Amino acid sequence: MKNDLLLRALDGKLVERPPVWMMRQAGRYLPQYMKLRERYSFFERCATPELACEITLQPVDIIGVDAAILFSDILVVPQAMGLEVQLIESKGPFLPNPIKSYADLKRVSVPDVHEKLGYVEEAIQLIKKELNNRVPLIGFAGAPWTILCYMVQGKGSKTFDEAKSFCFTQSQTAHQLLQMITDTTIAYLNAQVIAGADVIQIFDSWGGLLAPADFEAFSLPYIQQIVTAIKGKAPVIVFAKGAWYVLDKMAVTGAKALGIDWCIRPQTARKMAGDGITLQGNFDPAKLLLPIPQIQKEVKLMLAEFGTERYIANLGHGILPNIPVDHARAFVDTVKEWNPRNR
Amino acid sequence: MKNDLLLRALDGKLVERPPVWMMRQAGRYLPQYMKLRERYSFFERCATPELACEITLQPVDIIGVDAAILFSDILVVPQAMGLEVQLIESKGPFLPNPIKSYADLKRVSVPDVHEKLGYVEEAIQLIKKELNNRVPLIGFAGAPWTILCYMVQGKGSKTFDEAKSFCFTQSQTAHQLLQMITDTTIAYLNAQVIAGADVIQIFDSWGGLLAPADFEAFSLPYIQQIVTAIKGKAPVIVFAKGAWYVLDKMAVTGAKALGIDWCIRPQTARKMAGDGITLQGNFDPAKLLLPIPQIQKEVKLMLAEFGTERYIANLGHGILPNIPVDHARAFVDTVKEWNPRNR
Repeated sequence: MKNDLLLRALDGKLVERPPVWMMRQAGRYLPQYMKLRERYSFFERCATPELACEITLQPVDIIGVDAAILFSDILVVPQAMGLEVQLIESKGPFLPNPIKSYADLKRVSVPDVHEKLGYVEEAIQLIKKELNNRVPLIGFAGAPWTILCYMVQGKGSKTFDEAKSFCFTQSQTAHQLLQMITDTTIAYLNAQVIAGADVIQIFDSWGGLLAPADFEAFSLPYIQQIVTAIKGKAPVIVFAKGAWYVLDKMAVTGAKALGIDWCIRPQTARKMAGDGITLQGNFDPAKLLLPIPQIQKEVKLMLAEFGTERYIANLGHGILPNIPVDHARAFVDTVKEWNPRNR
Repeated sequence: MKNDLLLRALDGKLVERPPVWMMRQAGRYLPQYMKLRERYSFFERCATPELACEITLQPVDIIGVDAAILFSDILVVPQAMGLEVQLIESKGPFLPNPIKSYADLKRVSVPDVHEKLGYVEEAIQLIKKELNNRVPLIGFAGAPWTILCYMVQGKGSKTFDEAKSFCFTQSQTAHQLLQMITDTTIAYLNAQVIAGADVIQIFDSWGGLLAPADFEAFSLPYIQQIVTAIKGKAPVIVFAKGAWYVLDKMAVTGAKALGIDWCIRPQTARKMAGDGITLQGNFDPAKLLLPIPQIQKEVKLMLAEFGTERYIANLGHGILPNIPVDHARAFVDTVKEWNPRNR
């Protein structure tokens, strides 16, 4: 690997500067992506290896990030399990036949991932070839709780109250569904690693909606199963947005890194997670709308607070579609030019 | 005051059990409210003192809460400042001409609150008469940052990125607007107290979207001004949803209580806020969908964790529209029957 900063940072090894990438770096803020978006639907882009490869490589070539992340969506998993998923641009995901009861479990199954998600394996093989070891490739999946949110609620939500009440009032059924999602996800991530993914990130986008005890009941045990299954094969990053209150518990799952958002101070996160794990984050994506000199200033502040060791520079959530490309590049360049000695 | 539990809890005095009320307790889960909702628009209900009074009293009569909270909306403030606010049922607020620049400030002003919001004063006078000192009446307003969110973004949002970027890139204009909102809010809350409000709650619904340093720049100083102006006249409760990371700072504003949501453990909140302030919260509103025996069990767990002193039982956010009335009553009754000695 020519640029192995990310792998070294995940391993807790010394780095000359922190690696940097951005969540949703292959996305709508890039004009090159928007061109493909005009011509192909979301699932065409995901399911066509050549398109997924082209999109995955765009931020590596255009922005110069230290890692590529597979272009795909967490909702390919419920789709592979047998649930219809529509992704309506600008409206978000829609699952017309959500899971509401034990009887509905009959409509989903743990699939043969090679059969249902073989296009992802092909995309990864193609990406790895095209990347030619320039930077590592991150594969990913949603955490089972977040996937359940969509499978039960049927669409995006501020509170995912239907998903929660499903877990609270039909908890046995919920745990059965979570286990099916987990089994699918483990098989899927194993296939990603075999196809060439160097690192795996688990996104628990809605983890932070759960009270601490509920996170420990409905999310953490399934994240734990996934980390346990994958960690010997590839380093795992867990990002449970908003779930700062379980950083201590997540730090002992065997994950190599924890993602954090901008609503926790780096020092607090470090104290909670301990010194034995890498932290990833946590620039407020809205701050990329600042003028470039102010972005540089704010990024340097962030770097000074996290320090260079066991740290991956990133945003605290996905990059917003209205960010100028120059601003995204300024974020990345500021990290790349960082020298802790003469800051 | 026949039932002064809330006032005593705010004052840190001994209580036989914690007082209990629910955010949005006068709202859509009540069939009696839904009947009025069919006949009158949202702002008719807010601006007609007889209707606001009737709605405010419903949960006192039907559920038996220990406090009434004025039926109104935080967006009457931008409306009074001169901005058009539409409240489209089931779609949320819409401000067709949001503030985007310094020039737009000309379109808003600090109004004479008696002239523009006299209907709230009248409603409070009527409510106080009808309550006849059964329970205290809570008046309220939005925190300036949350009001700015709507004034700039023009509608609800998951990220309020336009409001944030307004603050970040036009910070002088943002501070001018925040000061105008603050001046209006102080005059408005003073009028509420003079009209008879016994307690004031400040809702910073979107405080938790800000990084700690940004909360300290764009929200806290204005909350501080409001608390300073009101605290000698009525006890103030500050609820900044999601902003757990500034509980320590908010605890020294002079507020008598801090609201917290369910994503922070009671012990953590107590440790951060210190022993000198009352805590209010933090039942996950989605848990009111549980069967009643489980609600009782979960409420008792919450009460055991918070303890009886310096504590107000509440939800961690507004009650959901789909909660059965019996479940809301079970929440309240469990607190009312709480006896720490034989739990």
